[in-house]
Amino acid sequence: MNPLAELETPVLLLDEARMDRNIARMQSRMDALGVRFRPHAKTSKCPAVVQRQLAAGARGITVSTLKEAERFFAAGVQDILYAVAIVPGKFDHALRLCRQGLQLTLLVESVAAAQQLSQFGAAHGQVFDVLIEVDTDGHRSGIAPGDPLLLDIAAALQGGARCKGVMTHAGSSYDLRTPEALQAMAEQERAGCVAAAQGLRAAGHACEVVSVGSTPTALSARDLAGVTEVRAGVYVFFDLVMAGVGVCTPGDIALSVLCTVIGHRPEAGWVITDGGWMAMSRDRGTARQDHDHGYGLVCDADGAPIAGLRFDSANQEHGVLQWTGYDSLPLAERFPLGAQLRIVPNHACATGAQHPAYVVLPAAGGSAPLQRWERFSGW
Amino acid sequence: MNPLAELETPVLLLDEARMDRNIARMQSRMDALGVRFRPHAKTSKCPAVVQRQLAAGARGITVSTLKEAERFFAAGVQDILYAVAIVPGKFDHALRLCRQGLQLTLLVESVAAAQQLSQFGAAHGQVFDVLIEVDTDGHRSGIAPGDPLLLDIAAALQGGARCKGVMTHAGSSYDLRTPEALQAMAEQERAGCVAAAQGLRAAGHACEVVSVGSTPTALSARDLAGVTEVRAGVYVFFDLVMAGVGVCTPGDIALSVLCTVIGHRPEAGWVITDGGWMAMSRDRGTARQDHDHGYGLVCDADGAPIAGLRFDSANQEHGVLQWTGYDSLPLAERFPLGAQLRIVPNHACATGAQHPAYVVLPAAGGSAPLQRWERFSGW
Repeated sequence: MNPLAELETPVLLLDEARMDRNIARMQSRMDALGVRFRPHAKTSKCPAVVQRQLAAGARGITVSTLKEAERFFAAGVQDILYAVAIVPGKFDHALRLCRQGLQLTLLVESVAAAQQLSQFGAAHGQVFDVLIEVDTDGHRSGIAPGDPLLLDIAAALQGGARCKGVMTHAGSSYDLRTPEALQAMAEQERAGCVAAAQGLRAAGHACEVVSVGSTPTALSARDLAGVTEVRAGVYVFFDLVMAGVGVCTPGDIALSVLCTVIGHRPEAGWVITDGGWMAMSRDRGTARQDHDHGYGLVCDADGAPIAGLRFDSANQEHGVLQWTGYDSLPLAERFPLGAQLRIVPNHACATGAQHPAYVVLPAAGGSAPLQRWERFSGW
Repeated sequence: MNPLAELETPVLLLDEARMDRNIARMQSRMDALGVRFRPHAKTSKCPAVVQRQLAAGARGITVSTLKEAERFFAAGVQDILYAVAIVPGKFDHALRLCRQGLQLTLLVESVAAAQQLSQFGAAHGQVFDVLIEVDTDGHRSGIAPGDPLLLDIAAALQGGARCKGVMTHAGSSYDLRTPEALQAMAEQERAGCVAAAQGLRAAGHACEVVSVGSTPTALSARDLAGVTEVRAGVYVFFDLVMAGVGVCTPGDIALSVLCTVIGHRPEAGWVITDGGWMAMSRDRGTARQDHDHGYGLVCDADGAPIAGLRFDSANQEHGVLQWTGYDSLPLAERFPLGAQLRIVPNHACATGAQHPAYVVLPAAGGSAPLQRWERFSGW
């Protein structure tokens, strides 16, 4: 008996063997490059997944919200980097977590934030560990490596805060497609962040942490001289966007959404499922890549891609799949009512966030009961 | 003291006065047209919101998942239409709800589903109330009004199921822009569904329910002769897509996401916030309308739109707003670190689904403590 047949769909499936392989691949690269690895837990939001990453050798984690910090600390993680620039409205929350014993590192990218955090810390008897955000690719926030503002920010971190180091994220690596371009971006990320650290050290700041990373650059870097730690998130599951970037194959992707055929529109060649955008998210991240997968890659219940069935359109709880293949069978016999399909997502972080839990496909296959790993959401 | 200033962002805000006005507007239209109104609860997924709709005169609700049916039944709603075609994998769940006393109506659009449901009901001593899905605009699923398949499906509903009526949803109304086109679509939806009912009655089926609706057609119909009930969901909050369709103004939109300025990139004209796609969803529903609002309409903390500040790009927990205005103030003084902004969403259903609760802005303003209304998610 196929255990998936008993599930009420849509359901988020996690292929444990693929996840374990992805974790091992990244950790062994980081070990070989001689850097500490601090995975980004925003992808899974799941303590069971993070435990696997830590067991494989990760040291500390990265989070994108203080709720993630709170939940993972409650699950036993002691060392957490909150890698989004902090603002005064979140100081109280950060202070509570520090007082509970969490080794929390914060991020700033302005003199104003550094001053306010330092004053807040001093007023509350706390010295916050802080990284300064460095911009190495112009894609979002941070201070350019040569900008004198870096020194001003470091100088403002005194009293209730201390400058622990620098951090960058080469998010524009997601737009690249070739190993050469990815290697060049990884080197740009490394060199920029190390240069920022050297500038700070020359001005008398200890700057012990030099933190870089994104999944594409982490998997492409040839050398990480001067870097102390690397961060990456989506590698744990991978997704179609990462396959388009070229750092994984579709066969590495550990997530899929199990859905059910609920109708047909034979004259249009449409197969209707109960997996709509609520189950997939509205993320269309492959739309600007060479291969646009629509709302995801359509596979059969065993996970084998179905050539000619495209996920073109989605409503809240309806997927509309377009059959473009040739088949002598009528559509309703080729994909009968009640048949299950699996959709591989464009973006693991976005699709995961739509679901309350992962149903874990056991590594060994076979007849073990399916496990359910809860994930959390919100702020 | 502004009570919003105390909130840790991002947070989903609900303007209670606007919601109440939207509810009253729709209910009074339905009352004037002489039809029963059955709001679609997939938009709010919140018992407190649905209670307002019922108190205003709605009779029963519509849902898009059996989890919604279960939760709203637990909250006291007795009469629920599950308006997505049912498949065998969900029969058990539906049966459990019926046995608990819920007056549940199901939907089918194939002979296969009708037969299987009838057999399942007969085998379990249950007679399910069933509507047949009618297609009046070709946008998704359902049977065309004149298709003889309608009679076959109705005939297959016997024993453990009975044909209670017909249902259609003119989802293509979302693509329209003018009152004339919307009125024509509302009439097409009405006429097609009534014709389907008449065909079934002529063949001896009672077909007491003729259910139509979408927010745009419900607000545009001039006459609903032959229709017994109307369904609509997003009207309760409205959103930028509905404003683009022309059935509301931005001033009617009851939802917004409160976020905080966390950084700047002055040379690029960027204001960085802590409201990214996790807080807004990836829904870009206005992209194909006359006015593309990016990831949402940027307003100040009081809800007044800020001309020249566009929400062009989003990462998971970062919004990147592009300043295109002219101002003698530097960007970091115009939108200082820690300042709050409110983002009006493209699509209320999608943005709402990213949040665990609504923070309710009281109708009277003033100093009453902010209420928090929980919403649920998942399947």
